[in-house]
Amino acid sequence: MNAADLGLPVDVPSTALFTDQYELTMLQAALRAGTADRRSVFEVFTRRLPEGRRYGVLAGVGRVLDAVENFRFDPAVLGFLRERAIVDEPTLEWLAGYRFSGDIWGYPEGEVYFPGSPVLRVEGSFAECVLLETVILSILNHDSAIAAAASRMSAAAGGRRLIEMGARRTHELAAVAASRAAYVGGFEATSDLAAGFRYNIPTVGTSAHAFTLLHDSERDAFRAQVDSLGRDTTLLVDTYDVAEAVRAAVEIAGPELGAVRIDSGDLLLVAHRVRAQLDELGARDTKIVVTSDLDEYAIASLAAAPVDAYGVGTQLVTGSGHPTCSMVYKLVARAASADPKAPLVPVAKKSLGGKASVGGRKWAARRKDADGVAAAEVVGTGPVPDALAADQLLVELVKGGEVVAREPLEAARTRHIAARAGLPMSAIQLSRGEPVLPTEYI
Amino acid sequence: MNAADLGLPVDVPSTALFTDQYELTMLQAALRAGTADRRSVFEVFTRRLPEGRRYGVLAGVGRVLDAVENFRFDPAVLGFLRERAIVDEPTLEWLAGYRFSGDIWGYPEGEVYFPGSPVLRVEGSFAECVLLETVILSILNHDSAIAAAASRMSAAAGGRRLIEMGARRTHELAAVAASRAAYVGGFEATSDLAAGFRYNIPTVGTSAHAFTLLHDSERDAFRAQVDSLGRDTTLLVDTYDVAEAVRAAVEIAGPELGAVRIDSGDLLLVAHRVRAQLDELGARDTKIVVTSDLDEYAIASLAAAPVDAYGVGTQLVTGSGHPTCSMVYKLVARAASADPKAPLVPVAKKSLGGKASVGGRKWAARRKDADGVAAAEVVGTGPVPDALAADQLLVELVKGGEVVAREPLEAARTRHIAARAGLPMSAIQLSRGEPVLPTEYI
Repeated sequence: MNAADLGLPVDVPSTALFTDQYELTMLQAALRAGTADRRSVFEVFTRRLPEGRRYGVLAGVGRVLDAVENFRFDPAVLGFLRERAIVDEPTLEWLAGYRFSGDIWGYPEGEVYFPGSPVLRVEGSFAECVLLETVILSILNHDSAIAAAASRMSAAAGGRRLIEMGARRTHELAAVAASRAAYVGGFEATSDLAAGFRYNIPTVGTSAHAFTLLHDSERDAFRAQVDSLGRDTTLLVDTYDVAEAVRAAVEIAGPELGAVRIDSGDLLLVAHRVRAQLDELGARDTKIVVTSDLDEYAIASLAAAPVDAYGVGTQLVTGSGHPTCSMVYKLVARAASADPKAPLVPVAKKSLGGKASVGGRKWAARRKDADGVAAAEVVGTGPVPDALAADQLLVELVKGGEVVAREPLEAARTRHIAARAGLPMSAIQLSRGEPVLPTEYI
Repeated sequence: MNAADLGLPVDVPSTALFTDQYELTMLQAALRAGTADRRSVFEVFTRRLPEGRRYGVLAGVGRVLDAVENFRFDPAVLGFLRERAIVDEPTLEWLAGYRFSGDIWGYPEGEVYFPGSPVLRVEGSFAECVLLETVILSILNHDSAIAAAASRMSAAAGGRRLIEMGARRTHELAAVAASRAAYVGGFEATSDLAAGFRYNIPTVGTSAHAFTLLHDSERDAFRAQVDSLGRDTTLLVDTYDVAEAVRAAVEIAGPELGAVRIDSGDLLLVAHRVRAQLDELGARDTKIVVTSDLDEYAIASLAAAPVDAYGVGTQLVTGSGHPTCSMVYKLVARAASADPKAPLVPVAKKSLGGKASVGGRKWAARRKDADGVAAAEVVGTGPVPDALAADQLLVELVKGGEVVAREPLEAARTRHIAARAGLPMSAIQLSRGEPVLPTEYI
């Protein structure tokens, strides 16, 4: 991939400005101090899951790879930095030649994680690694928050179809990334055309109340929609009276009507009534789609309702109460000098207010019990015990600056479903609780 | 402005894909039914403020104008829609020539709003207006959520400097819009370079723990930073022992040291100790910046602490508990035929589960009491009473497809501060309560 590929419906040339100013001023100071070239290891991890959540879902890895690949300081960016006097000339010169040349290992996309899991490890010179902090955290914190909510919703939906419809409730480009993360977490389709365009996610659509209100009668609206979009369209039946609308819908489209959508009222009750009415009218194959501020709890509460698909918006794109993760990007080891052969020294901030970190370059593995069910997240800095060698979690993503682990989005989705299935059953309980696996440091 | 200008650090050619699929399929059905050209009025409003909030803050209007201006279906987009068979050929032809030619009125950016306030009114043919729903809501729902949190924080900060530092906690492009919205809500600066580049918002930076840990000692790190960035830099003093760090900082930078940053611990206590120590060391002008999961309540609780500036991240970019608004885009009136002279008929969805809307094209005014303090948000569909004529809230933004109300971001910021100051004092209470103004429909 040569052009930037940022999850946008269009290409943009650089991700280098998605960066906090201090990354650049630290670079300047380190260049001048002669410490910028010290080999360094940064790790991304979270100290805790959102309150009550049993597992985290890593999403955005593919977007991180795109962002790293396209992190370049072009003349427009350099001109801005010069004009604002954000960094000095030697630093600008250094930036003009920037290209990440280090190594990145990490949990593959869709994998689950726990407090302390080293989900991404970035290794290279301090200078080349520190610059990537902001954009990597932006992507992983956002996308993983959405994927975690999506995963809970998909567990609650128990195989019923889930459609992402939240574009209007979040930033227009965050929406595209949210559709992608929701897909990783188990959703099947999106209403967002940009997400379809950019990530090839299946797109779907129904109809809005405005369409009904535009016409002189609900029947006129239904007829217009069926005439144009075919009998297998989805008609919205709650603009006026639901029972009357369902009758009109089947009368106009026939029993081949694809689906009806219910967007208000007591969904459990209304779905039962609509199902009975559809069956009575002979429209036994007509599906029922429900929407209306659904979250994982509402989805679970509709398990007994005759619902075929859920359209989820607000609660999905806002992470169902947790719109961001608390992932951090920390220096955990660095060389004592700029000599590329100098050994790495573990480093860590002193504990103050729970913000301590564990020094040293880490590996991670998921220990299984005798039945093959995950029993612990094991994180270590020494040699990997033989018994865990085959269950290691980090894979090579970037080698010497080259992305080596691109994969189709489908692979991340499949991986997530498998990873979740490998956790103890209590992982998919919606009730609040502790992380379903303990993290053991060895 | 000819190229798209979407709040990105770079230009992209079109906003047309930031759209839910059903907008296009409704268009197709309406084109075929002959109803697409009916003159229509859509309004954006919210039925409620987030729980406990006293007022809303409208932000993103400038971004909406950019999005409308650049809403075009270029060959790549049309090719995608054709390949996926999302709409038929006549619809694709219609889209190829799409350019919004209608009128948009709305509350100006930075204005406050209440439940039912018609913050945006879009008028034109059904076809040209319905397509804009998704992107308009994405922008206003996101940006207004951030601006509302920013406004509460700026009221709580009581004139102390507020710095937006949340890029790493939200989508990388949502972050740019969040910086912009935070500025409208009263913030003064951002750490996000893309926001500085795109919106000319002042950017600032301090230093991270990684910089200290990179060096062989904290003193080495401070010396490197001061040597390169000057004495008026901000040194991070909580990597190891705060008192020792403050001593070293003043020793190395002298009493001209710009500021110290505290990012952990009991900020109230630590700020008092650091202030006393700085004063004792003669660094009376050295400022104290605090960061660490601040929200409006934490900011208010530090009112008595000797703090000069607050850096706010997570809670700002996630709307302090309310990461989105519940704004909707509803058809409120439409012509009975495609004749451009046909009179408008008010339309409204029937109430079901609290989702009723009020039909008819609306005006709004803010009624003041004898002291000039706002007393009510008045919304009407008939003629505007003379007494309210001068206090009307909607202004013309787009006329016949041309943007007529571009303004510098500073104007929105100034307007917000004035609008908030015009509300009853209880508006800026942080405690939960009802909207500070009632909405009256006349």
